[in-house]
Amino acid sequence: MDSKQQILDKSNEAKELFLPHISADPVIFGFDQNDLKVLLIKMNYRKQWLLPGGYVKKDEDLDEAVERILKDRAGVTGVYLEEFGVFGKKNRSEFYFEDFDETLFHKQRFISIGYYALYNPTKLNPIPDELSEKVEWIYLNQLSEIDLAMDHREIVDKALMTLREKISTKPIGYNLLPEKFTLSELQKLYEAILGKELNRGNFYRKIKNLGILNKLEEQRRGGAHKSPDLYSFDEENYERALENGLSNW
Amino acid sequence: MDSKQQILDKSNEAKELFLPHISADPVIFGFDQNDLKVLLIKMNYRKQWLLPGGYVKKDEDLDEAVERILKDRAGVTGVYLEEFGVFGKKNRSEFYFEDFDETLFHKQRFISIGYYALYNPTKLNPIPDELSEKVEWIYLNQLSEIDLAMDHREIVDKALMTLREKISTKPIGYNLLPEKFTLSELQKLYEAILGKELNRGNFYRKIKNLGILNKLEEQRRGGAHKSPDLYSFDEENYERALENGLSNW
Repeated sequence: MDSKQQILDKSNEAKELFLPHISADPVIFGFDQNDLKVLLIKMNYRKQWLLPGGYVKKDEDLDEAVERILKDRAGVTGVYLEEFGVFGKKNRSEFYFEDFDETLFHKQRFISIGYYALYNPTKLNPIPDELSEKVEWIYLNQLSEIDLAMDHREIVDKALMTLREKISTKPIGYNLLPEKFTLSELQKLYEAILGKELNRGNFYRKIKNLGILNKLEEQRRGGAHKSPDLYSFDEENYERALENGLSNW
Repeated sequence: MDSKQQILDKSNEAKELFLPHISADPVIFGFDQNDLKVLLIKMNYRKQWLLPGGYVKKDEDLDEAVERILKDRAGVTGVYLEEFGVFGKKNRSEFYFEDFDETLFHKQRFISIGYYALYNPTKLNPIPDELSEKVEWIYLNQLSEIDLAMDHREIVDKALMTLREKISTKPIGYNLLPEKFTLSELQKLYEAILGKELNRGNFYRKIKNLGILNKLEEQRRGGAHKSPDLYSFDEENYERALENGLSNW
């Protein structure tokens, strides 16, 4: 079955099942090799890349919908997603389904709700759905090299901006790291999210002041230099800090 | 014409004009007498209070829609609105239009996009639309005394939480104040948003460190005590601070 027929077949079923005009797009960030990456699917149709988004069932809450969509499209479950923005330009998907006529469910105007999550890529095992050739982690600095459809580049960029704002007030992103990590690894994560280099001394001082790290009795072995100390999160203090934010006031 | 007939008359027109299932609710905060208030309308129908929300036209961008809605329903223009949350529970408006049958446009399931803005109440001149008895500023601490319909209390609370998070990283809320203000008035604003008292010495030191205030050659006259200095915003530094956030890193 060709990729166009596949979409046509889905259209009638979709009209029965889903609300019109509303979609949800999950932006799942991972961290690997000191860089951020994002989970994308490559559609059979046009071989274009997209976020693993989808539609909202008539009888499900929006929060339930986005979790189910991520499961349906990328096989990913157990991810905590947070809404970060709404994409509602009237022509945002105008050119994507141009091989089809206006009766196609997918071709109508959609206002899309963006959700983001941060995960350690080694803890997820993504599986593509039947409409997709593959699901893959793509590094943010390689996004300009792939054919990312519609306004999905804008959605990823807005999610990253949200991440940057959040990390200034709340300790987020820690589930991007392995359970035990060095301060240098943590600094690389902050640098990847903020998109800039940080002063090592300042960073170490500030991060220790948050009181959310436990220094372990172990070091990272194997490097050429002095073995650096390993840390883990103090979960209780971390939860409290997440709740309160790191208010300046 | 009774209020029920008024809504019935609007229903058919609405089906032509608007996207189904999507609404937008503006939460406009004002600051007065050292307390926050919010702009609400009192509907003719059931005499219930609501945010001045509405629907999205088939041919308008979502951003345009929310501005037009605020103008249509409350006569308010020139307000910069920021999206802060999406309200998508499947039964969120189930009991509101129970006097009508399922063919009513207004009675379908709506996913609502919440927007907030901060304004000096003296600078806005709200005018109710034909469906509303009045539009009024209601103090947040009086919300529990009025009959606020659907989940609109939850929407206001979420907007306030967003404000609290934002004010920790960015200088927001300054257009809630008159052009010239005392540090004590600014502190009251921060306290109203954060919902807690702040230490005066700490507050003055931190706010001055932001570099966004200009001390004027004037004092506030007329009080019993020493006349306090007046300040205005340094617009250039304020814009820069807004853009950068007040990053801890």
